[in-house]
Amino acid sequence: MPLETLIDENRRAIQAEPIKARAVFSVRGELVGLTEVELAARDHAVKVDEPAELGGQDIGANPVEHALIALASCQAITYRFWAAQLGIELEGLEIKADGDLDVRGFFGFDDSVRPGFSAVRLEITPRGPESAERYQELADAVDAHCPVLDLFTNQTPVVRRIAVAA
Amino acid sequence: MPLETLIDENRRAIQAEPIKARAVFSVRGELVGLTEVELAARDHAVKVDEPAELGGQDIGANPVEHALIALASCQAITYRFWAAQLGIELEGLEIKADGDLDVRGFFGFDDSVRPGFSAVRLEITPRGPESAERYQELADAVDAHCPVLDLFTNQTPVVRRIAVAA
Repeated sequence: MPLETLIDENRRAIQAEPIKARAVFSVRGELVGLTEVELAARDHAVKVDEPAELGGQDIGANPVEHALIALASCQAITYRFWAAQLGIELEGLEIKADGDLDVRGFFGFDDSVRPGFSAVRLEITPRGPESAERYQELADAVDAHCPVLDLFTNQTPVVRRIAVAA
Repeated sequence: MPLETLIDENRRAIQAEPIKARAVFSVRGELVGLTEVELAARDHAVKVDEPAELGGQDIGANPVEHALIALASCQAITYRFWAAQLGIELEGLEIKADGDLDVRGFFGFDDSVRPGFSAVRLEITPRGPESAERYQELADAVDAHCPVLDLFTNQTPVVRRIAVAA
């Protein structure tokens, strides 16, 4: 199904029944080694680990790299959807994401340093026959609607429950 | 190397040369299908895609699921590190992360709806011989030092550069 059709069908379905707009995404995981974590989203298994300098065996990308994977892939897919919405031809897209992190926050060596990224940089190269202005228009629409960019740049409430195993 | 030793060595190295605390994490990716994205963090390749109802072929977890994978794995590993720092025995840990998302934000059907998660819930089950109070103490230390929890709950500046392919 072309994305234009999918978007129109979603619009109609959600206008008829607004509750259909609400989705819940779920992930479960288990610490299976010193720093190795096995996770699954539906039937998609993912392994996360730390590199040797952070105590792991480097079996997979680490958590903050997965956060950048989430951001870069969300941008790429949101470009695809909004190109369809705006009638902008998009043949392909490359993206690079860099994040600066000061490990003193994570280790607790300096509690004035935040544990997460202090800054993130995205470099996006859309490919296609349209003018630079049209791709800029697309970029602006993407940045207003990209779920993971919203997650990075705004606050999201996280509620935690600790259940100690019996 | 035990994590206690690794943490001590990092503390000494960073006290001697504070610039060693600064890390840059990088990811590169390419949109290779309608919604399929191939990415890599160092030599770790990851495929991201959307399920059929969002136009994809479901080749991998989708971007917002990867954001939850980043959060759940970061919590698990931060439990491991802070258990070592606090001398709390931790035999294992299970974790579940749920995120609520209203797709009207992503599709642009209602611009008063944010595109990202409106709420996230974490359920963490640490396993080991310590008291519930000790695991609660651990949980509090983790939440003050977990890089991806910081990313979710606080604002991170993201700078974007668009480079239209020649």
